[in-house]
Amino acid sequence: MVNCFILRIGHRPKRDKRVTTHVALVARAFGASGFILEGHDESILNTISKVVSKWGGKKFLMESTRNGKAYVKQWRKKKGIVVHLTMYGINISKGINELKTQRGRVLVVVGAGKVDGWYYKNSDYNIAVGNQPHSEVAALGIFLDRINSGKELNKKFDDAEIRIVGQENGKRVVGVR
Amino acid sequence: MVNCFILRIGHRPKRDKRVTTHVALVARAFGASGFILEGHDESILNTISKVVSKWGGKKFLMESTRNGKAYVKQWRKKKGIVVHLTMYGINISKGINELKTQRGRVLVVVGAGKVDGWYYKNSDYNIAVGNQPHSEVAALGIFLDRINSGKELNKKFDDAEIRIVGQENGKRVVGVR
Repeated sequence: MVNCFILRIGHRPKRDKRVTTHVALVARAFGASGFILEGHDESILNTISKVVSKWGGKKFLMESTRNGKAYVKQWRKKKGIVVHLTMYGINISKGINELKTQRGRVLVVVGAGKVDGWYYKNSDYNIAVGNQPHSEVAALGIFLDRINSGKELNKKFDDAEIRIVGQENGKRVVGVR
Repeated sequence: MVNCFILRIGHRPKRDKRVTTHVALVARAFGASGFILEGHDESILNTISKVVSKWGGKKFLMESTRNGKAYVKQWRKKKGIVVHLTMYGINISKGINELKTQRGRVLVVVGAGKVDGWYYKNSDYNIAVGNQPHSEVAALGIFLDRINSGKELNKKFDDAEIRIVGQENGKRVVGVR
């Protein structure tokens, strides 16, 4: 799988709490290596920590940054490439093959509300999961599903307390410690 | 594309407004034929109506139902099959090929919070987009992306006022009337 980290910019704690939580959960569930929140919102990082201790994946990086732009600059200088998800970008079907072969780290920038033009100019790729208005949560999910060719859905999470055994009907949860 | 309709059950107007709006926007953007809301929340249907008049797709069905279970029963009697998206179901990779060949209408049930066991028993398929906790918005997006083999991202919407021309850098929006 490609080594992706998700940077959520422009988070507004009152308005975006649940949507940003969904972004972070999607990052973890679909095989990203970490989630970085621009700004401060303890409650979100706490929610994800609880999910990690129950469902596994202790290596999942979670951190905050004061300044998304500085984070992106540093990333490009020292760590790898930057992909900005935006409905104005090029169709994911066109861009994904190039991204699938990335061996380095990929920072995926996901905005809330209006994104500053700076991010368009300072990302290596502006990728659109369709050019229609919808949801950054779905866009991130599909991006990770495509870049990992669906393999992320079979990912095993270390150190889980429980896991689900998929059923045609009903629920089956088993303890794994 | 497969003729899908999305039923959002268990919507709690205060808590779920934004997430349910994202579910409805994903339904429209990814080629579903309609969105049905269990319960009453005028603000969501209004938001989607505004998106439709600007971005197109007047044929997109939007309606409310008082009772999701009765809706599902009627659907199976008269209209087609029912797919329930749940983290407890069988892996989408296993179930999707059978669903891709559906020529009739498919009702996709998307829950908020805890879903009554009734839906597990009374759906034709319980499908998991991964067996990890994440987001019904991402689950629906990936489900529609997979069932339509990615074709939904190139869908043209009739009667749009504007549309985006995807760019490597920056934004380009054109009027189409």
